[in-house]
Amino acid sequence: MALVPYVEYEDASPRVRAVYDDIKATRGVDWINNFWKALANRPEDLERVWRNVKEVMGPGVLDPLVKEMIYVAVSATNGCEYCTRSHTAAARKKGMTDAMLLELLAVAGLANETNRLANGLRLDVDAAFR
Amino acid sequence: MALVPYVEYEDASPRVRAVYDDIKATRGVDWINNFWKALANRPEDLERVWRNVKEVMGPGVLDPLVKEMIYVAVSATNGCEYCTRSHTAAARKKGMTDAMLLELLAVAGLANETNRLANGLRLDVDAAFR
Amino acid sequence: MALVPYVEYEDASPRVRAVYDDIKATRGVDWINNFWKALANRPEDLERVWRNVKEVMGPGVLDPLVKEMIYVAVSATNGCEYCTRSHTAAARKKGMTDAMLLELLAVAGLANETNRLANGLRLDVDAAFR
Amino acid sequence: MALVPYVEYEDASPRVRAVYDDIKATRGVDWINNFWKALANRPEDLERVWRNVKEVMGPGVLDPLVKEMIYVAVSATNGCEYCTRSHTAAARKKGMTDAMLLELLAVAGLANETNRLANGLRLDVDAAFR
Amino acid sequence: MALVPYVEYEDASPRVRAVYDDIKATRGVDWINNFWKALANRPEDLERVWRNVKEVMGPGVLDPLVKEMIYVAVSATNGCEYCTRSHTAAARKKGMTDAMLLELLAVAGLANETNRLANGLRLDVDAAFR
Amino acid sequence: MALVPYVEYEDASPRVRAVYDDIKATRGVDWINNFWKALANRPEDLERVWRNVKEVMGPGVLDPLVKEMIYVAVSATNGCEYCTRSHTAAARKKGMTDAMLLELLAVAGLANETNRLANGLRLDVDAAFR
Repeated sequence: MALVPYVEYEDASPRVRAVYDDIKATRGVDWINNFWKALANRPEDLERVWRNVKEVMGPGVLDPLVKEMIYVAVSATNGCEYCTRSHTAAARKKGMTDAMLLELLAVAGLANETNRLANGLRLDVDAAFR
Repeated sequence: MALVPYVEYEDASPRVRAVYDDIKATRGVDWINNFWKALANRPEDLERVWRNVKEVMGPGVLDPLVKEMIYVAVSATNGCEYCTRSHTAAARKKGMTDAMLLELLAVAGLANETNRLANGLRLDVDAAFR
Repeated sequence: MALVPYVEYEDASPRVRAVYDDIKATRGVDWINNFWKALANRPEDLERVWRNVKEVMGPGVLDPLVKEMIYVAVSATNGCEYCTRSHTAAARKKGMTDAMLLELLAVAGLANETNRLANGLRLDVDAAFR
Repeated sequence: MALVPYVEYEDASPRVRAVYDDIKATRGVDWINNFWKALANRPEDLERVWRNVKEVMGPGVLDPLVKEMIYVAVSATNGCEYCTRSHTAAARKKGMTDAMLLELLAVAGLANETNRLANGLRLDVDAAFR
Repeated sequence: MALVPYVEYEDASPRVRAVYDDIKATRGVDWINNFWKALANRPEDLERVWRNVKEVMGPGVLDPLVKEMIYVAVSATNGCEYCTRSHTAAARKKGMTDAMLLELLAVAGLANETNRLANGLRLDVDAAFR
Repeated sequence: MALVPYVEYEDASPRVRAVYDDIKATRGVDWINNFWKALANRPEDLERVWRNVKEVMGPGVLDPLVKEMIYVAVSATNGCEYCTRSHTAAARKKGMTDAMLLELLAVAGLANETNRLANGLRLDVDAAFR
């Protein structure tokens, strides 16, 4: 059970429903996942976070699938199960295969390893990298 | 100053030089950065980590630039200055612009934010994501 | 199942019972939660950690509820389910509402986002902040 | 040196200047710190992040100083120097003393310790906390 | 359910079986744990990560039990349940008692606490430590 | 510059001096490092944290050098420069060589890598590890 109740569509205020409707339309889905139903307890957070997701994950200079994969790599690094599962699902819808998931986690794993070697050894940043 | 001395090419054993030579040839550079010069104090680590970097960052199903960007996103998440600067430099050589760097950090930042909202609210993973 | 057995009150040594009794009296509760029952396998840890919690979370210059909320924000950042749930419960007893929980997580989430933007961009600290 | 150039007011586009002007007016300061000057390389990020900071850190159910202190606690947990220094400065302007800073770090430090004890022992969440 | 299917021995290719056989022989066990069965979806990762584990955790200048305990301390710090449970099991096989587990977590917990005090206060590194 | 002033011995209250004297006597050193001089601004923290360090790092079932190495591994994982440098110095005084430091960081690095693979793949914990 989550720490706050989930706000279901039928119980939602018009302000919350407007965001739910936009999520459905933007993503082409007919249901709302728990993340948004929890945030809906504070409508300004629901609106704010959704607006951020829409802007950041929307069209830009990077490929949408690349963005989802970066999201998965960060979520795996932080150990967030909800985010790892939900963004893996989103990435699969955009074309990510098992082989791509494993390769991106190989990169994320390696980065986590070398991050600790570099931080643990307190390396001086080479002049060429400054 | 790092916690271990840097092993310079001219002072390196043949075993270490062999790795240094491979790094230079593989990357098309004529110098060795501090990360490898520190690891060279324990040649089996130098060989092992270089082999990992070469295998993971080499040809695969993901684009090489995408991999470097995942590396930067993880390094920024972990606060590793050395890794952030060195892999940003590597990504730029492969074509990353300032706009791409800012967009990838926007995604990484957003992921870090929603990771904490999801973990803080202890959300139930939706059945559709399992 | 936890990695060590839980030490129940009836099986506890007098040394452990003394801490359990103090926890109950200090908090006005009639049961001991799993955190203490696990630490009780090494009584010096039980005593030491309890003494720390009592001192740090006791009267000081900050409001007790504010301290619990800082505890929740850090626990959410670290992804510790046990700590997030137990300190959310403690904060609710001291008056935290759902709206306050959501606002504190909004702040924690934002901080996690901007921490990565600042670390990822390797910003120079402005003179005015030094 | 940061990874992207700082956009100074005099070189900024009208779109960027509008945000800079709002930051100055909202905070009652006459200068822009490096965080915003770096984000300004991608104006949509500057606008988006500033809007978030303004909304999340603006009036709500929590005291503004409490919010800044949560920000500092999270930044210390993540090891972000820039954020720790800038939000400590902001908290001091709102009344935080050295004693308050030390007490909040004592809480954050303790939370980081018990988070690892709870995660390391893989504790079962007590029924009362669910 | 994991994000990728587990590759069972009977369904595995000869390449994967060779690694499985080596894991069994090296560890003196007659089963393969889920970590390897998930990586086996990308045989080069299975080979690479196993080779790393074998090299890093094999004979060196540190005691094998000490290495397992460092592994547990890091896994507890990162909140990885799978790694904490599997490496605690490995450490127990090498002689770790409950008292040793609790003492190592006490050290890890303390380190996590003082890490935040030091990072939060932005301490200058003493000349003697440089 | 740290966020709080350092309390020098000659300016310290008798309460603070008592701790400083105990640190010097316990460690056989004739100077106080910045960590304690910063905490001394709030004497109860100085006393509390020192008591914890003394208890946790004092005699127990684990070897003192092993404890220092666990401290270094956690500090490298968290990216705390102050803690990494100070506990590396402490470990060297207890006998840690460069080869031992590199091997412990190899273990810590590997753990950080596999932690992300396990968390990223959302592995089921094998029955044998429960």
